[in-house]
Amino acid sequence: MDNRVTKLFNIKYPIIQAGMIWCSGWELAAAVTNAGGLGVIGSGSMYPDVLREHIQKCKKATNNGIFAVNIPMLYPDIDKHMEVIVSEGVKVVFTSAGNPKTWTSFLKEKGIIVVHVIANAKFAQKAEEAGVDAIVAEGFEAGGHNGREETTTFCLIPIIKKAVKIPVIAAGGIATGRAMLASMALGAEGVQIGSRFVASEESSANINFKNAVIKSNEGDTKLTLKQLTPVRLLKNKFFDDVQNAENNSASVDELSKLLGRGRAKKGMFEGDLIEGELEIGQVAAIIKEIKSAKDIIDEIITEYKQAKAELIKGF
Amino acid sequence: MDNRVTKLFNIKYPIIQAGMIWCSGWELAAAVTNAGGLGVIGSGSMYPDVLREHIQKCKKATNNGIFAVNIPMLYPDIDKHMEVIVSEGVKVVFTSAGNPKTWTSFLKEKGIIVVHVIANAKFAQKAEEAGVDAIVAEGFEAGGHNGREETTTFCLIPIIKKAVKIPVIAAGGIATGRAMLASMALGAEGVQIGSRFVASEESSANINFKNAVIKSNEGDTKLTLKQLTPVRLLKNKFFDDVQNAENNSASVDELSKLLGRGRAKKGMFEGDLIEGELEIGQVAAIIKEIKSAKDIIDEIITEYKQAKAELIKGF
Repeated sequence: MDNRVTKLFNIKYPIIQAGMIWCSGWELAAAVTNAGGLGVIGSGSMYPDVLREHIQKCKKATNNGIFAVNIPMLYPDIDKHMEVIVSEGVKVVFTSAGNPKTWTSFLKEKGIIVVHVIANAKFAQKAEEAGVDAIVAEGFEAGGHNGREETTTFCLIPIIKKAVKIPVIAAGGIATGRAMLASMALGAEGVQIGSRFVASEESSANINFKNAVIKSNEGDTKLTLKQLTPVRLLKNKFFDDVQNAENNSASVDELSKLLGRGRAKKGMFEGDLIEGELEIGQVAAIIKEIKSAKDIIDEIITEYKQAKAELIKGF
Repeated sequence: MDNRVTKLFNIKYPIIQAGMIWCSGWELAAAVTNAGGLGVIGSGSMYPDVLREHIQKCKKATNNGIFAVNIPMLYPDIDKHMEVIVSEGVKVVFTSAGNPKTWTSFLKEKGIIVVHVIANAKFAQKAEEAGVDAIVAEGFEAGGHNGREETTTFCLIPIIKKAVKIPVIAAGGIATGRAMLASMALGAEGVQIGSRFVASEESSANINFKNAVIKSNEGDTKLTLKQLTPVRLLKNKFFDDVQNAENNSASVDELSKLLGRGRAKKGMFEGDLIEGELEIGQVAAIIKEIKSAKDIIDEIITEYKQAKAELIKGF
């Protein structure tokens, strides 16, 4: 069982763990890689020295050294992060939240595989032109930062498949083997999974946040802060404060001030479920247990195979 | 090729055409039924006498008389509509936008198959308890009226599959064979397709609206009027007027007044693309041609089979 995504990364299963601030350090990335997927260190919440330490530990902890680092391009210390990535010999980089032309040729010249995360066809084409190796297409249901078009995974994957020739990895709403199968049916060649891995044993999310995720239900997340950068959050007091401010026609400055600094750390890493920012996807509603990354991947693959067999027999 | 949905309605393909105000009269319903799907007359924009005429014409125009009527339960003349349905011997009724307990036993006692449209697990369970035969689960990407939870098709189908035992029909974001296959992979046993049939030759939508649909692109629809009943619209001047009113903290009364009466007719039936309300799904972005209902269904089934064969051979 091989396709362009398994071959690109030299992995067993086309399952990529999303690089997530405060949740995906070396423990999670190494566990996913060792279970046959592609582990990704989320550098967006790390100082350059911290990133270096995570990369070094991940190299030691993985059987094959195949893991990636995610770089959200809106972070200020990006050139230092790039220096760390190159000097540590990282093989795969996922870039997001920015112009794919800025760093792709720099990374490709160093022999690094580059994947760019997008939410519309315009940026997918821009990324392909910039020379990236694959695209992550992330739908409206995904946790964290999100596209302004609000295009859902169901509608986005076919649009992106039509727009580019390079492999498309589906993201947003995927936590099970059936959802992986649905992504492949839509034309994706792999899946990027975030929320399911937040509630893993190896995730560095605070246990309070993990517990909040597995207790959440449908309607408990919502895309908010649309005047700044749209972000999908688990509803809590901070979310309500934002809604109230928006209902009272708060300005962009007032919203930025309300958000302040360190909200995401406070919520996801320190476990403050009241004042913290809790980034998670809609699919949290069907995640009911904290499990090891290996169990998560094994269950997804088992369900994928079962669902595929059922689909073959069905209509 | 059979499943619970094809057996329930005695149809060839598990493809249901959505009952849509101003777009789905007897011509469209009959064409879909004659092509092997289930045609649905949208009664929400019809006076009782008009509905009777459409039912009578649909009976004459269909080979087998298997078609349905959709009844949005928020419409005022619902008891007169129900009288027409019973006296005309309609075999299948889709109810939506209301409490499934109100009419289900009345219809079931008359031997009518009842399907209820929902957007969350609570109403799915309520509908199952009320005795309906199947559920349409409609995601955030669907056109027209929509759930407050904003749950997308990708996330909604698994939630509803888990919540009920009766067959689940997926809706929202489905216009192609691949999307039908993805729906089945998620556990649906049929699909309800709206937007694709708006841009059909037999749809009663105004040609201006049909042309606007096939010219639209990603990001051109948005869920709006959330303070009244959330509705997904194609962006135009009327949509902008609503946005501006909402940005200026318009009250529910002010928004109701702005919406007024007859906006949907003006837009979708009379073709006023400036002042009219244009209900359409996100998937409009990939609909590029007006076709006959038969060609639409044939293409969906052909792509479904091809995509299934590819999926079997792939990872």
